[in-house]
Amino acid sequence: MAAIDDLRTLLGEISDLGRARSLLSWDEWTQMPPRGARVRAEQLSTLSRLRHERLSSDELGRVLDRARSEVEGQPYDSFETSLVRMTTREWEKARRVPADLRAEITRQTSISEHAWDEAKRASDFKAFLPHLERVTELARRYLECFEFDHPYDPLLDDYEPGMKTAELRPVLEELRDGLRPLLAEIAASGTEVDNSCLYGDFPLEAQERLAHEVLEGMPLEPDSWRLDETVHPFATGIGISDLRITTRFVPDYIGAALWAVIHEGGHATYQNGIDRELERTPLCQSASLGFDESQSRLWENWVGRSRPYLTHLHPRLAELFPAQFAGVDPEGLYRAACNIRPSLIRIEADEITYNLHIALRFELELQIVEGRLELEELPEAWNALVADYLGLDVPDDAHGVLQDIHWASGSFGYFPTYSLGNVIAGQLWETARAELPDLDAQLTAGEMHPLRDWLAGRVYRHGGKFLPAELVDRVCGGSLDPAPLLAYLRERFGEIYRLEAAETATPSVS
Amino acid sequence: MAAIDDLRTLLGEISDLGRARSLLSWDEWTQMPPRGARVRAEQLSTLSRLRHERLSSDELGRVLDRARSEVEGQPYDSFETSLVRMTTREWEKARRVPADLRAEITRQTSISEHAWDEAKRASDFKAFLPHLERVTELARRYLECFEFDHPYDPLLDDYEPGMKTAELRPVLEELRDGLRPLLAEIAASGTEVDNSCLYGDFPLEAQERLAHEVLEGMPLEPDSWRLDETVHPFATGIGISDLRITTRFVPDYIGAALWAVIHEGGHATYQNGIDRELERTPLCQSASLGFDESQSRLWENWVGRSRPYLTHLHPRLAELFPAQFAGVDPEGLYRAACNIRPSLIRIEADEITYNLHIALRFELELQIVEGRLELEELPEAWNALVADYLGLDVPDDAHGVLQDIHWASGSFGYFPTYSLGNVIAGQLWETARAELPDLDAQLTAGEMHPLRDWLAGRVYRHGGKFLPAELVDRVCGGSLDPAPLLAYLRERFGEIYRLEAAETATPSVS
Repeated sequence: MAAIDDLRTLLGEISDLGRARSLLSWDEWTQMPPRGARVRAEQLSTLSRLRHERLSSDELGRVLDRARSEVEGQPYDSFETSLVRMTTREWEKARRVPADLRAEITRQTSISEHAWDEAKRASDFKAFLPHLERVTELARRYLECFEFDHPYDPLLDDYEPGMKTAELRPVLEELRDGLRPLLAEIAASGTEVDNSCLYGDFPLEAQERLAHEVLEGMPLEPDSWRLDETVHPFATGIGISDLRITTRFVPDYIGAALWAVIHEGGHATYQNGIDRELERTPLCQSASLGFDESQSRLWENWVGRSRPYLTHLHPRLAELFPAQFAGVDPEGLYRAACNIRPSLIRIEADEITYNLHIALRFELELQIVEGRLELEELPEAWNALVADYLGLDVPDDAHGVLQDIHWASGSFGYFPTYSLGNVIAGQLWETARAELPDLDAQLTAGEMHPLRDWLAGRVYRHGGKFLPAELVDRVCGGSLDPAPLLAYLRERFGEIYRLEAAETATPSVS
Repeated sequence: MAAIDDLRTLLGEISDLGRARSLLSWDEWTQMPPRGARVRAEQLSTLSRLRHERLSSDELGRVLDRARSEVEGQPYDSFETSLVRMTTREWEKARRVPADLRAEITRQTSISEHAWDEAKRASDFKAFLPHLERVTELARRYLECFEFDHPYDPLLDDYEPGMKTAELRPVLEELRDGLRPLLAEIAASGTEVDNSCLYGDFPLEAQERLAHEVLEGMPLEPDSWRLDETVHPFATGIGISDLRITTRFVPDYIGAALWAVIHEGGHATYQNGIDRELERTPLCQSASLGFDESQSRLWENWVGRSRPYLTHLHPRLAELFPAQFAGVDPEGLYRAACNIRPSLIRIEADEITYNLHIALRFELELQIVEGRLELEELPEAWNALVADYLGLDVPDDAHGVLQDIHWASGSFGYFPTYSLGNVIAGQLWETARAELPDLDAQLTAGEMHPLRDWLAGRVYRHGGKFLPAELVDRVCGGSLDPAPLLAYLRERFGEIYRLEAAETATPSVS
């Protein structure tokens, strides 16, 4: 297996450069003294460039050719075959983009992100528009490096390998069209959920203790992770057993320390469960951004906001924050965790309206890429969709079209992965419940490992061996399907908001 | 200046790889979850290898050739000329060592360091001997890649560029021969220094506050550094304005939080003072390890253990640790800081015996490299020199020949730089005192910036533009000279231990 060994050596270097970059980035957001920023940008850029040079090198192409004949006849899902297949895919994509276009995108993105930051502070879309125009033009030049059925396909493929716009669109539309009437029913129900127990005075030390206990309990492998504070929480892996989880702690709201930590812990749990054989290869990652998000969402919402888990957690919360939770029973805590309220800001949105935030961004991205929307019309189009889907008036662009960094970064095709994460989580949860009949009782007892082990065995260990569509089919059978997500949401919120004729498609909700 | 720009681009990448490596290493010792170690070793090795490939590349050689003609006729000390001159030196050295020898050294060193760690725990030199033999053999193959007058020269040159064994030897021998009688006089004086105020109960939170205040006061540039805990303290620079200082905090001893922090802060102050123009070039470093150590020592001992500085610090210490320092006056604190007592362990040694620890290691290294000592005889030779220089019996190898990692790492030639640091600090201090007549009054008032600015202007800003011998000559005039160090030690400890006929060569001691 000489060629496979050579391939592993080359890919090990590429992985090391990428992981070093991740560590520098984590450090930048959690540890770095502020004045280190200027040099850090150069260091990050160098590591990215060297990694890309190697990923698109002639040498890697030759070793892949040799390895391809070596693994011929081996099973499709063997490590070696998957490594050659998926690396070839990455190599071919990397080769298609000229180095100068890639450099220009990097340069322009950095400028545009800073311009976005300033424009957002001033709530001034016009100031940002010329930058958005340049970034969009570069995205167009980028996608033209590829062959495609739909011009959105190459953009989407960077986040959801192999997925076509023609497959994605009906899934997100079915989701949207299922959620809008549900949201209307909730609004019409007149039921108010009392979530006041989540707001008040939460000493930071107790919040930190809670966060660590929650992560330990997921369970994450001991001595393999750490938790730090940052402004915009994220999780990143420096190795399968070197995971960096970040969060914010908000003094007067416990939700960040609880659900944001479980969310990032979900990402980390996925990385932590990848087969050790895949370490230092391009397979040592989640199957797609959607799959990655499916795990943050599944742990945050399906588990972390569930009646069983919150029943388990309730005594500890009452112990750590007696003033807040002494008068609240587990059922009250569960209801507080499930409050639905349309709001202007995506990252603050609830389980239902979050997907409508994504739906409107996806529609606008498609209109832009298809040439049906001028960029200068973007705020107006945005505000119209917010009014239509969420029933809200957008007071200014900072609370509207300027709220997210993604377009400033040229990351068209990224937003849908958030909703895909919810869709996939819905399908995985439905399958897990069918195969783990005691799941509710286990979560009520704080036993998370049966679920974690099931997910690791079905999803995590494979890392990036399969395309997301392949993995959905392997685990759940069939293709992407928003029905389980819709059924779960209708059942959970149908009960809480006492909606009539809740169409319970899944056996029970937890 | 096209060639210089190309040179800067290549060197910027090399610098970024080196600094990324430094950050990964800092992270490993301060932040990394324990189970990250295995992959981290691979990442560090990849960054080192890629950096070395680029540093020894044909491409860099060609760009250096072009740049050399471009800068012809420019002043010796201009940035461009110095960059070409010093980079050429590094490039030529890097080219002489075959890649497979370098890889073998890296591999063997890693094995040997782990073997040393186990052998030290078991105090079993015999278990370590075969590893030491392999590492020593590799050091021999390494030095044979170079031309030399003395076989120790190429080893020394890695730490003290341009320095010859023939220059170093008389300096260290003169130092040793000056210190031995001084130590004997101190022992014979019968004077006991009371340093009991440094031992007791020091709450960690107050220690941390002290450490931060001390570093802020040096002064280090705000928002450009951080302090973390580790096992073996060190300081490293990720950028001129991104400095990582580490320390240990010992609950029952204040010396670590105070002098170890000032020591590492001295290293950081040097990096922090390098001219910004040198950032992301090989000149963005200290002139040598000896020069680097001169700054940790100067700040730790000449400043940090001085009567003026401790007079300034005394009220704050009494405030933070009233039980310890309420009954001690500034003079008592000063005397406690200057206790001399021979001990077995180098890193715990005082200002005088430290250099005798180095002297014996240097003599043994020379004997090994000259082939006058068999490695199996090393413990016996070590113990004999400890008895001779320090008057102590070595109870076991863990407290003797196995105490340091340096030989396990193959770092022959490193030890002398510790004493060189003291020698250079002595020379710099003598010059600084002559040029800063109010220095004592300034330090007593806690005004450190006149000294810091003087050092930055004379030493720090030049980074690695000059060979250490050139820099000594530029700042102090002449060559390396242990006389100022000896005079300083004799005056300081002559007074404390009430020695007769103290030969005060410097005007006064502080």
